[in-house]
Order: sequence, then structure tokens, then C-alpha cells
Amino acid sequence: MVSLDDLKALARPASTKIVLLVLDGLGGLGRESDGKTELEAARTPNLDALAAKGNLGLADPVAPGITPGSGPGHLGLFGYDPLQFRIGRGVLEAAGIDLDMTDRDLAARGNFCSVDAGGVITDRRAGRIPTETCARLATMLEGARVPGVDLVVRPVREHRFVVLFRGDDLEEGLTETDPQETGTPPLPVKAETQSARRAAEVANQFAAEAKKLLAKEHPANMVLLRGFSKYPRIPWLTAIYGVRAAVIAVYPMYRGLAKLVGMQPVKTGDTVADEVSALESAFGQFDFFFVHVKKTDSAGEDGNFDRKVSVIEEVDAQIPRILALKPDVLVVTGDHSTPAGFKAHSWHPVPVLLASRWCRPDGAPSFSERECRFGSIGHIRAAALMPLMMAHAERLTKFGA
Amino acid sequence: MVSLDDLKALARPASTKIVLLVLDGLGGLGRESDGKTELEAARTPNLDALAAKGNLGLADPVAPGITPGSGPGHLGLFGYDPLQFRIGRGVLEAAGIDLDMTDRDLAARGNFCSVDAGGVITDRRAGRIPTETCARLATMLEGARVPGVDLVVRPVREHRFVVLFRGDDLEEGLTETDPQETGTPPLPVKAETQSARRAAEVANQFAAEAKKLLAKEHPANMVLLRGFSKYPRIPWLTAIYGVRAAVIAVYPMYRGLAKLVGMQPVKTGDTVADEVSALESAFGQFDFFFVHVKKTDSAGEDGNFDRKVSVIEEVDAQIPRILALKPDVLVVTGDHSTPAGFKAHSWHPVPVLLASRWCRPDGAPSFSERECRFGSIGHIRAAALMPLMMAHAERLTKFGA
Repeated sequence: MVSLDDLKALARPASTKIVLLVLDGLGGLGRESDGKTELEAARTPNLDALAAKGNLGLADPVAPGITPGSGPGHLGLFGYDPLQFRIGRGVLEAAGIDLDMTDRDLAARGNFCSVDAGGVITDRRAGRIPTETCARLATMLEGARVPGVDLVVRPVREHRFVVLFRGDDLEEGLTETDPQETGTPPLPVKAETQSARRAAEVANQFAAEAKKLLAKEHPANMVLLRGFSKYPRIPWLTAIYGVRAAVIAVYPMYRGLAKLVGMQPVKTGDTVADEVSALESAFGQFDFFFVHVKKTDSAGEDGNFDRKVSVIEEVDAQIPRILALKPDVLVVTGDHSTPAGFKAHSWHPVPVLLASRWCRPDGAPSFSERECRFGSIGHIRAAALMPLMMAHAERLTKFGA
Repeated sequence: MVSLDDLKALARPASTKIVLLVLDGLGGLGRESDGKTELEAARTPNLDALAAKGNLGLADPVAPGITPGSGPGHLGLFGYDPLQFRIGRGVLEAAGIDLDMTDRDLAARGNFCSVDAGGVITDRRAGRIPTETCARLATMLEGARVPGVDLVVRPVREHRFVVLFRGDDLEEGLTETDPQETGTPPLPVKAETQSARRAAEVANQFAAEAKKLLAKEHPANMVLLRGFSKYPRIPWLTAIYGVRAAVIAVYPMYRGLAKLVGMQPVKTGDTVADEVSALESAFGQFDFFFVHVKKTDSAGEDGNFDRKVSVIEEVDAQIPRILALKPDVLVVTGDHSTPAGFKAHSWHPVPVLLASRWCRPDGAPSFSERECRFGSIGHIRAAALMPLMMAHAERLTKFGA
């Protein structure tokens, strides 16, 4: 891999525009009837036409065989080696609700849960309480007393919240309290390293305080904590490539991820068409656009092959509007595969389509996992896509004399 | 990547011969009329026949998206990771004119340029003065006095020269004086690291002296300096693989590059046919031959699609003479792409053809970028080609028990 320092040295200014359109969980598996994947079953005349003119390939988000979470999946697409840059769930959730973190903060993702009189978990999500209830309880938890530590507790959605432990010597390296099953009490937090011992103490004190404060609540009478993490220092896209980068995403977590690498959020409505409208309105103000479509992944996770197909078709119908903006580079891909037949994120390589005037056309008949095997991008790590996009946008100068 | 140390441990003696035929800037882009690249448009019956019997692939000289200069492009082909082994322009130019360097030398590439009375650059190449004038001025500059430093100044061609600063504590890490545009004075040299401060002082003293010495000359009344660099320590091909390696190249820089990895230059005339004659005459004395054809790149840089096609055809016509020598391995490829449509080096992967009796034949109908996508070499880094060549030449033994 080319280092980010090398890429920074090669970056040169340009007035070109790049659109990275991510269909979350795009990669699929063949259905029983005819062996077609979701992308292959979808009617995608616009993407197919692009495939003929552009380049195809397959990308491993992290490495062959590795199933990525949303964080590594996107970091790879943004050009960062996910094995080198790691982001905790706590940080992700905080970023997704615009909660600024300081260097003294340790973030954790919290779930309100239900426990019985014996402290045994009966519902890991407390019946998915309304967000308003979550907000009230979060404010209550902020009043918990943990000596030497300021608490910031913010609701996310339903039973989910974020807590920031703000204090000295609060380091990463903690186990989580969520046992991932009911019928057992929350686990104590343990320090995995010497330097995280103070943080473990603080987290356990907070959990104990939460239990007391929530004792009379129902069904949300306890918390589960996971993803303890510090804000990572990731060089921003602007600092590396000199691009003004924007994120257009409906879900907070993806905006949060993008903000970690310096992208600015653009306001958008909920549909794919809304997102393209947001792209249109912001097109003059940025150089790089990350547009995130969530519903492909949700359909895959639900095992709903047909719904995933129809989301892909919904995206295809918007391609002409994107092309009308005349981006210099358009990449359509996923952050990982979520085959409907697998009902979860998977390790399967992700189809990649790159279109630009500088493509040596692959002449593929369609955009599909099958055709991507023969594309001239080859089978690459997702992190190699960013230099390719920058090259096609004429934003990288020659390496060496 | 397999390390050079590992490869050295695997190398075993053999009497086999390898020819690496490099068409500089071979990779192309499709022309508008029919989408064919230069290689696809060229009539190449001999290369096509080889493609059917041999293996095809695509190679990234450095990494996806990275456009290589000539140095990294060739180092990759010679089996060195260009991101690890870096060669400054000054060293390249010195090597290209057979100017031996010592450990105390810091080399720089110089251009004679024209400045007006206010010291502002009016022509970065001083009207491309004749090489004889350059030689006279170089001798004059050698007389410049820089305390504690011996100067070696040698003409290259037209306005280009090389200067060696010979002295103690002259380290790399300097900015260049060429602002890359007219209408502004030459820049002062700055040290990018603490250890390069003495070198920066020396380079600035030399530039000031040059200005005085050249004051009455016209149009070459000033110098621009860039590519300050020390001679790199690169393990030689002989030391790694035990091959006696030769370079056949018309242009000095490519001979210089090859000498950096221990190749011995073989005298040659200017045409491709002359180069093949040189190959024939030296065939008994070496094991590995790097034959460099420059004119594909020049045509690409000039945006001359048809001339690039005809150079490729000129090379194709010489293939039977090369095959008549019965090399055990013949590789035909480029050091990078220089598509005529792009008029410059580019990042596009380079077509590779490897022929040997040990190929599992790809049966491709032709040697082209298109067919190379399906070849059994796959899409690789150029540096992985050297072990492949050595393997096909039965020059690598088994790894591990």
C-alpha cells in the first residue's frame, strides 16, 4: 500500500469532482431459482451502460475472508487501511449524533436494557423504548456521580445512547458489559491493558450508579456498555488530497464516520432521490462527495432479496441525475457484502464500478459480481480505490523522476 | 511481496537466458474511432503468436492509481519495490552519463535557464542551448568556489547538466530551485531535515556563484537545480539472483537506471533493429538482458497515436530475431502507460506478456490490454514479475521443506 504521506506528497490541486456512491452491503449471493445475485437480478440499465464505458473490479474491504463492520468497511473506501486505523463503536455513535469529543474523553455506546430483581437481563434492548424516554433517562444518567470524571450522556435512537467519560488517564482497552444474551447479568468491565485500569474502574462505577438511578424505571432499568474508545487521529482527506469532501447520508453513523476523515455533512431527506437532490445542491461547494445508501444493507440483513433488488433499481433510476452533474469520476460500490441469503455482513468481495473519461473501457455487458471478476481494476483492497479515484480525477502527480 | 533476502536465499545457478523487452510507456487508452489502444491497433502477428503460447497479465508499476516516473517504473520491473527504493533525479542523470559517484557526493540535476536583469526567469531551458555550449558553461561552473566542497559539473544534453557536490555532511532532503514556471526568480534551496542544512548552504552558495560566473552569458545566464540526491544502496541483480545482467538502451538515463542495479551496458545503435543486433552480439556473455525501447513513450508523450502504433509494429517485426536466440524466458511489457490520448505517463496498468517453455498457455488471440485482463499472471505489482521470470528460467529453488 502507498502510504498516506506518499499520497499527500503526490496530491495536486484540480477542479475535478468525484462522487463515491456507496450502496451499503451491495455485494450479494445467488438466489436459488436462477443463481443471480441481487445486483444481477436488478434491472439496472444505467449502471450497465456505465459498466460498458468504465472499469470494473472486486474489492476486499479489509482483506480476503474478513467480514467488516460499518467502520472498517467505510474507512477502506475512504482510502485508509482498516487494519491500521481502528474506530471504536463508542466514537462512531458519538460522531453520528454530532457530539464533539475532546482528548480527555472515552466514549462508549450504551443500551438501556431490562433486568429482573436478581439483576439478570431479560431484554437487551428494554423493549426498544421510545427515543423521548431514552432522552429523559440519559439526562438522569448524566447526574450520576463518578469522582474525578465529568459525564456526557446523550440519547441516540430508541434504547441506544452514548456516554462520554471525561477525565484524566481514561484509556482504551476495556471489555464490554453486554453479554450478548439474556438470562445472565451484565458483565463487569475489565481492563485489557495496564493503562486502561482507571477507565475500567470509572466504567464500573458508572454502571453501578446507573443501576441505582434507574431502579424505579421500567422497562429500562439498567444499561449495557460497549465499544469503549478514544477519538482516533486520522489524517483528513483535505489534508491528504486537498479535496473539500462532503457526506450525504441519512443515518447518523455514516455521517459520523465521514466526519472522522474530515467530510462535511450536507443536509438530506430520507430517500435516494432526496440524497441526489442534496448532491445537486452541494455540487458546487465540494470536490469529493460520499453518498451513502443504507437500505440495500437493511434489506440484506432482513434476508429480503427482492427488497434489496428494488433498492438497487431505485438507485439505478437516479444515476442519470448524477451523470447530469458531469462528475469527473463516479464510483459505485459497497462498503461490504450483505447477501440476503446470508442475512448479515459477509466477507465476499464487493463489486466496484469506476467511470471516468480516462478509463480504458472494459466493455462489460453489465454491472454485476460476475462481470467484476474480469474488470481491469482487478481484485483489490478497497483502500486502493481512493488513489485510483484521485488518479482518474487528475489529482495525483507523478511519483519519482 | 517476497523480500530480496528471501529471493537471494532461493536463487540457484542455471544456464538459462532471460530477455526483458521494455516498450517504454507501452500501455495506452482507446482511440475515439474504434476504442482500440495503440497496442490493439498495431499489427503484431509475432507478439500475438507469443500471447497464445505464453501468459498475459496486467501490472501496476508502483500501486493502483500511482503514475510512475521512469525511475520507479523501471525499478519495479527489475524486481524492487519502488516505494522502498527511491532514486533522485540527480543520481539518475549522473548515472546516465557514466559519471561515477562516491559516498561523499550529493548529485543534482541542473538546467541552464534565462533570467532578466531583475533575476526573474524568462526561459526555464535557456532556449535549449546546444550541447556544446552546455559543455563549455559546465566547465566554467566547475570553477566556482564553494568552501570545503569539490564540484563536478558535466553536460548532459542541450540545457541539462549534472552537478556533484563532493564533500562531508552533504545529505539529502533539499527543496529545488526550479519554480516550474517563468516570471518568478529561482527559489532558494531549503533543508527539509536538520541533517541537510549543510547541503542547503552549499547548494545556495553554488547557485550564487553560478549567477556571477554566468552573468555575461546569453541566453544561459543562470541555473536551476533539482533532484538533490545521494547514490542509493540497491542490492545488485547479480547479488540476489546470481545473473550476469546487461542493459541495451539508446538513452543514457535507462542505462543509468540499469547500472544502479548492477547491469552492464552493451553498446548499441539507435534503432530497435540495432538494439536486437546488440542483443545478438552479447547473448553469450550474459544471463539477463534488459532491452529498452524509448520511442513508444516519446510518441505517447507527443500525443501521436499512429507513431506509437508504428513503433510497436517495428518492435513486433524484430521479435523473430529475438526468438531465434532461443531465450528461456521472454517478457514484453512497459515501465508504465503513456497513452497518446493522455500525452503523459499515466497510472493505467501495463500489459505483460511472458513466454517460456514452462508457461501454462493462456491461448489468448492477441497481446492487448483487453486480453491481459484475463491472463493467468493476473493483475500484479510490477515488482512481482522478476521472481516470475526467474522461476520460469528455473533460477529459483523450492521455498521451505
